[in-house]
Amino acid sequence: MRKNFIDKLVSLMKSEGMDAVLVCPSEEMNFLLGFSPMMCERFQGFFIKSDGNAFYLCNLLYKGELANHFSGMKIYDWFDGDFMPEAVFKILEKEGLTGKTIGVNSTAPAFNILDIGFKANIKFVNAKPLLEEIRIIKTAEELENLRTSSSIADKAFSEVIKFIKPGLKESDIKDFLCASMIKNGGCNPEGIVATGPNSSYGHYMGSDRVVESHDVVLLDFGCTYNGMYSDISRMVFVGGINTENIKIYEICRRATEAGEAAAFEGAYIPDIDKTSRDIIDNAGYKEYFDHRLGHGIGYMIHEAPDIKASNTRKLEKGMCFSIEPGINIPGKIGMRIEDIVAITDAGTEILNKSTHELIIV
Amino acid sequence: MRKNFIDKLVSLMKSEGMDAVLVCPSEEMNFLLGFSPMMCERFQGFFIKSDGNAFYLCNLLYKGELANHFSGMKIYDWFDGDFMPEAVFKILEKEGLTGKTIGVNSTAPAFNILDIGFKANIKFVNAKPLLEEIRIIKTAEELENLRTSSSIADKAFSEVIKFIKPGLKESDIKDFLCASMIKNGGCNPEGIVATGPNSSYGHYMGSDRVVESHDVVLLDFGCTYNGMYSDISRMVFVGGINTENIKIYEICRRATEAGEAAAFEGAYIPDIDKTSRDIIDNAGYKEYFDHRLGHGIGYMIHEAPDIKASNTRKLEKGMCFSIEPGINIPGKIGMRIEDIVAITDAGTEILNKSTHELIIV
Repeated sequence: MRKNFIDKLVSLMKSEGMDAVLVCPSEEMNFLLGFSPMMCERFQGFFIKSDGNAFYLCNLLYKGELANHFSGMKIYDWFDGDFMPEAVFKILEKEGLTGKTIGVNSTAPAFNILDIGFKANIKFVNAKPLLEEIRIIKTAEELENLRTSSSIADKAFSEVIKFIKPGLKESDIKDFLCASMIKNGGCNPEGIVATGPNSSYGHYMGSDRVVESHDVVLLDFGCTYNGMYSDISRMVFVGGINTENIKIYEICRRATEAGEAAAFEGAYIPDIDKTSRDIIDNAGYKEYFDHRLGHGIGYMIHEAPDIKASNTRKLEKGMCFSIEPGINIPGKIGMRIEDIVAITDAGTEILNKSTHELIIV
Repeated sequence: MRKNFIDKLVSLMKSEGMDAVLVCPSEEMNFLLGFSPMMCERFQGFFIKSDGNAFYLCNLLYKGELANHFSGMKIYDWFDGDFMPEAVFKILEKEGLTGKTIGVNSTAPAFNILDIGFKANIKFVNAKPLLEEIRIIKTAEELENLRTSSSIADKAFSEVIKFIKPGLKESDIKDFLCASMIKNGGCNPEGIVATGPNSSYGHYMGSDRVVESHDVVLLDFGCTYNGMYSDISRMVFVGGINTENIKIYEICRRATEAGEAAAFEGAYIPDIDKTSRDIIDNAGYKEYFDHRLGHGIGYMIHEAPDIKASNTRKLEKGMCFSIEPGINIPGKIGMRIEDIVAITDAGTEILNKSTHELIIV
């Protein structure tokens, strides 16, 4: 158990008026406890109370494995033959939590939480921001791992450029990228490869389109290194590019570089978003920049701080996040250049080293 | 959109006093709409109202791709720069849902639901059972796909028996099983391979232990065929088995076969659970049967009807579920024989054909 982070969480939950925080199986649990079990429909989670005491509550089926991983942890169980909300209610009553306010992490399933809340008269609230806040400032070691993770993604990009050609399926390119990240020391490789009109869909889910001459190939991918994520987006143009697309590319590039230049210690986050957005707005593509400028990154691919108008705080030393303005014209084309940026002792550091120059293969 | 299932859902939500049901990206959404997008931390979902009208609410980043998949759907969007609960509140107000009761599916994230609930004065409740109820009775076509899916798992078992030997890692065996299911026409192969003492952990997460002589190898795996899941558990004993373990195996076998014999149309579900459980209890292993007797199966690996004491209903024609009594002695050994069982026009049909005989390799 990472006691210093638990202590931070306890301090935050008190200031937010929470009597406990519930962390269901997730990366957040893995961060705090060093292990996270499978999560099925049976309710389970780790409760940290505002007095600093903690316990785990799980279905009996999981108890043996959890006791094995969490030695010294107080573990309560409920049984499949029980009515879950009733059984959990009795445990929470024993822990003095009925009628109280409990924060939940990012993976707590609403269908369970609602049943338990009604039965045990608990006011559940959102504690996801607290679990991000305790680690929003990266340590030197975390920063070093973020650098390595980004360099693995950069290497994969330099390799995939030589691989992309007409006739390949999107899934072929994704498989190549993932294999390249693994080969270079990354774990948990993931990515979006969206070609032609599919590039306009920010979180494109498909994989079957075949690359054609004059396509854009949008790559958005990353992996972990010692638990820390990378996330990079670049485009490759196949066989050529028309004037309109060169123009869009250059606007995206200017927007990314302006955003990165505006991201320094003490900068007001909405101003950074505005700096990039103004470039795209003034170029006439306002409606096609359909997302935030960036997201924090670390133990999760998306964590605090979001770089967007509604996040009204300032950048601090140790924060790490993406800058990724984009232009997505639905059904036509999408582009974005994404780098990971860290605020360090030495100033603003761009962790990705891949070129922003237009690449035609 | 599967209109007949939406109609069933509307009828059920009315009888449960819900004004709408929210389905977030999931297999449940895929079942109703034929597509389910990526889900990140940005709230999105499909709302079906009790008057039969429906709409989709998503972050702007997803709108293009969703409009492409859901032609004719009314789609509302919110933007990253907005404060999500405020933006969603305005949309729900327009749809007349503020102050109402809305049911949620199995993947609705509590942290979002709680924020929206407070802002829009919505009483969210658990609608997971309703989404399972609308398809608890399998059609002839679904049943045929369940049969095929089970037969693919059976084939993989017959192949893996010849593969298992001392020196292999758990992950080697899992990889073999998954490849075998793919080769035989399955999709989405998954499995638990737990050797030696790891077999005692019902949802074991590890993969690194190396098979030794006289180990038990517990296999619990399945895949999909035309969207319908299989799920089978068997044990293989490596090089020999001691008397105590033969005894445990035979108790498990009797418990599975007795449970299957007790599962007929009209049978009261708690009685089926009791039939199997009595065998294990009377043999002195009561505390080690630490889970329900079985779970429904279909478009999800776990769906209604659960076969357990707290599910007080009767079996109906078209229901399909697992029977899998087990004995799990923490840190020592675990065993279970699991088959999928369907209640058909012709009676009770055991979809898995793999032998229940003790297998030593």
